[in-house]
Amino acid sequence: MSEPLFDRIAIVGIGLLGSSIARKVRADGVARHIAIADHSEAALAEAEELGLGDGYTTDPAEAAAGAALVVSCVPVGAAGSIADAIAPALTSDTLITDTGSVKASVVKQMLPRLPHPECLVPAHPVAGTENSGPSAGFADLFENRWCILTPTEQTDLRALDQVAEFWRLLGSDVETMTAEHHDLVLAITSHLPHLIAYNIVGTADDLEEVTQSEVIKFSAGGFRDFTRLAASDPTMWRDVFLHNREAVLEALGRFSEDLAALQRAIRWGEGDMLHSTFSRTRAIRRGIIDAGQETDAPDFGRRVSKG
Amino acid sequence: MSEPLFDRIAIVGIGLLGSSIARKVRADGVARHIAIADHSEAALAEAEELGLGDGYTTDPAEAAAGAALVVSCVPVGAAGSIADAIAPALTSDTLITDTGSVKASVVKQMLPRLPHPECLVPAHPVAGTENSGPSAGFADLFENRWCILTPTEQTDLRALDQVAEFWRLLGSDVETMTAEHHDLVLAITSHLPHLIAYNIVGTADDLEEVTQSEVIKFSAGGFRDFTRLAASDPTMWRDVFLHNREAVLEALGRFSEDLAALQRAIRWGEGDMLHSTFSRTRAIRRGIIDAGQETDAPDFGRRVSKG
Repeated sequence: MSEPLFDRIAIVGIGLLGSSIARKVRADGVARHIAIADHSEAALAEAEELGLGDGYTTDPAEAAAGAALVVSCVPVGAAGSIADAIAPALTSDTLITDTGSVKASVVKQMLPRLPHPECLVPAHPVAGTENSGPSAGFADLFENRWCILTPTEQTDLRALDQVAEFWRLLGSDVETMTAEHHDLVLAITSHLPHLIAYNIVGTADDLEEVTQSEVIKFSAGGFRDFTRLAASDPTMWRDVFLHNREAVLEALGRFSEDLAALQRAIRWGEGDMLHSTFSRTRAIRRGIIDAGQETDAPDFGRRVSKG
Repeated sequence: MSEPLFDRIAIVGIGLLGSSIARKVRADGVARHIAIADHSEAALAEAEELGLGDGYTTDPAEAAAGAALVVSCVPVGAAGSIADAIAPALTSDTLITDTGSVKASVVKQMLPRLPHPECLVPAHPVAGTENSGPSAGFADLFENRWCILTPTEQTDLRALDQVAEFWRLLGSDVETMTAEHHDLVLAITSHLPHLIAYNIVGTADDLEEVTQSEVIKFSAGGFRDFTRLAASDPTMWRDVFLHNREAVLEALGRFSEDLAALQRAIRWGEGDMLHSTFSRTRAIRRGIIDAGQETDAPDFGRRVSKG
């Protein structure tokens, strides 16, 4: 274990992401002191029982006071109010990063509220599971996953370097791009997939000729895969769609056009069109596996035991 | 190992499904002799190298001659031509089953071409992976998975019992329903999910503001899940959509209506509607896990090592 990067860090929001950060920081000694803030007393009690930090408070400013780094791990709709809450405790030496899945909106909400905007290094670790809450976190969550930093025009270069180092110590590979480009890329690689997954599970829930017990029973034909993303945190995802509206609507428009073309091919029996569409999609999966972002094991290596 | 259920069985089509059946029949001694037919010389050579059977031929009738059970494991569009091919070799003692993902069309194609229609017991084992070909199969594929039998009005009850026993010996739980109901249920639990997965991967492949390397790099945000279904066999899936057209178009229509409602909620910032939609989908996943059809492990228990 090397010298801690920071003496004290503050984690605001102790859900899946916040608690994973706390565990890794503790496990690898990335900071000496971990101050945890959350608006939920229940979440704080759970975090304390799990021994995730050294201090627990409902007041973000109390956690942020004296911290070298504040990590905001709240739904993106709460970014502005977190900035307001921590502002009084911030000095020109307090670095700020976050874990929001949308970046332009987070920057727009936080930047004008921070006394030292040069200290903000917005981040999005592209990592997660379908589970939520302090107990869902684990220290290896960021291992081998990308963390995208979207520095603003005001971001100080030394702040950027230190925050990048922090994410690397958590296990992430770090990439940098603009907030706007981030939001376009994630609209297709994350936001649209979640929307589609939520939607198909909802559609299945509504059918009257097919009972829910049949949907459950025969879900191994493909449907069950979608239920994982559709089990993600509703508040987090509501905020993502409200705060990345333009990019999501654009991606959705293209998706719907393409789907209409497939629908037409099915209606008119155009087998060649279907076959050629279905043939060009394997290469992307191969690329993802080769890039170390997916398992090569059939069926995700999933093991199901009799319930 | 108990007494073999059959002396000789014929497997027509030695892909993922056919080869999994062959391996399980061999491993558990379900039949003494396994005759394998496939239109592809290369697949037969691969099957022979893997030692999957006792005889290999491109002629389905040659494989079927003397068999107590013929299992057709071909894309559903080929069901009629397989029936034509095996017809001369069939006696009133030859049972016939299949693995097609669509059932009404398979019945319609096969029934009029069989000399003894009472021997046909259509089946759909709801099991598979994204991989194809003789080497993709494994003996445990059917373990803990449902196999749906859709006997016709002409199906002999003893034939039904024997074929049900065969699927149980392969590891399946057996369920019986009409072919029409099967096609409705599977349209939502399997066919629509595959169509959506193929479509979103295709849409991602077409974007010009986001490069394919970015889609691959940041796919862990959700997109990668869809690439598994979208890596499935194009010929098999082309045939599924062409042969279950009405039910798929109906399911797709409902999916698109629901998606339009979500799209509208995003455009108009209706957070409550989004939150309530996203909140009701967790229960279905819980039901699938409790029914023993899905793993409880976060992220499917997926393990990804650096590529």
